Amino acid sequence: MARPRRSEHTREALIEAGIQQLAQFGYHGTGIKQILDEVKVPKGSFYNYFESKEAFVAEIIREYANNVLGELVEFTQSTRDAISPLGQIRAIYGYLMAKYEAVAYRHTCLIGSIAAEIGGQSELCQQAMSQSVNLWCEHIAQIVAAAQQDKQIRDDIPADQISALIWSTWEGSLLRMKLEGNSNSGRTTLSLLLEQLLKP
Amino acid sequence: MARPRRSEHTREALIEAGIQQLAQFGYHGTGIKQILDEVKVPKGSFYNYFESKEAFVAEIIREYANNVLGELVEFTQSTRDAISPLGQIRAIYGYLMAKYEAVAYRHTCLIGSIAAEIGGQSELCQQAMSQSVNLWCEHIAQIVAAAQQDKQIRDDIPADQISALIWSTWEGSLLRMKLEGNSNSGRTTLSLLLEQLLKP
Repeated sequence: MARPRRSEHTREALIEAGIQQLAQFGYHGTGIKQILDEVKVPKGSFYNYFESKEAFVAEIIREYANNVLGELVEFTQSTRDAISPLGQIRAIYGYLMAKYEAVAYRHTCLIGSIAAEIGGQSELCQQAMSQSVNLWCEHIAQIVAAAQQDKQIRDDIPADQISALIWSTWEGSLLRMKLEGNSNSGRTTLSLLLEQLLKP
Repeated sequence: MARPRRSEHTREALIEAGIQQLAQFGYHGTGIKQILDEVKVPKGSFYNYFESKEAFVAEIIREYANNVLGELVEFTQSTRDAISPLGQIRAIYGYLMAKYEAVAYRHTCLIGSIAAEIGGQSELCQQAMSQSVNLWCEHIAQIVAAAQQDKQIRDDIPADQISALIWSTWEGSLLRMKLEGNSNSGRTTLSLLLEQLLKP
């Protein structure tokens, strides 16, 4: 494998450190100086990589969302023959619930957290987040449509509307799980949605 | 009306200024110094009123939640004879949607925003938020139960579970509305939930 160019390597390191800081301290609590110190990049050279803190965070959001979506697509493809579509949806959210519970909700979905903090304040970040959410919802809608074909989810409602509902319910449940420090209410709410309300 | 004691007046002013700062800049972006400057309180005296920034924010959360819950209870009582329980639920969320859209989502539900930012990091704030959400959900559950008695909402699911689902779906929808800068998706999602999935 070719050694990455120095600048590309640094850029990646800045983004990686940025994801950690953002997840823990949010947009306003994330200082460019701390990130530069961590990656050992001189202060003046930040603007060689990114135009502004805002542009940097938008890039972080895109990178984070690409990773998460990549995992989602891979999981869906690799389990297609083993698990039913509804089983896949259960597994995706069950996995995420266990993952965030394991870190005691110190950090959860980066998109949801940043959306809550600056969703109405930065157009650049808003666009990056909105695109990410749309891609996620489109992918989940495909699984929902497959579950509708299998008669596992009611088919009197368009798959994209169901997918949007699942997204909102999941993000809101995540807030409640964070506050309560456990996944009980999230499990009840998601199960109510998937196993009762969406049943054919 | 008796003139409030100076200290009580200052305390209230600090909380009021804190609500504004928090709503706009989040927990990490809110500086005690700015708030003290705004209220014209000398730096040293902050700790006469609050033990720490964390305790201050927990107090802000309680005060904010009390106000919002007070409005909710008043609305419910004053419209009891004029609007059906389901109509009340529609009106409550319709009102909130219009209210946040009018400020272009620069600030929305303070509890949801702070929960997203530090929900897993501060026990004091977590408790204050968790109590607030429980009180809100209990009140909505009462309206849901009334709607179930009126055969406007299906009664095969406990009212408190439906109320928790509405809370999560609402908070998640709020994030999406923030990102999209309009209430379209929120309206579709809430209407899907209230008018289709929860129909008897």
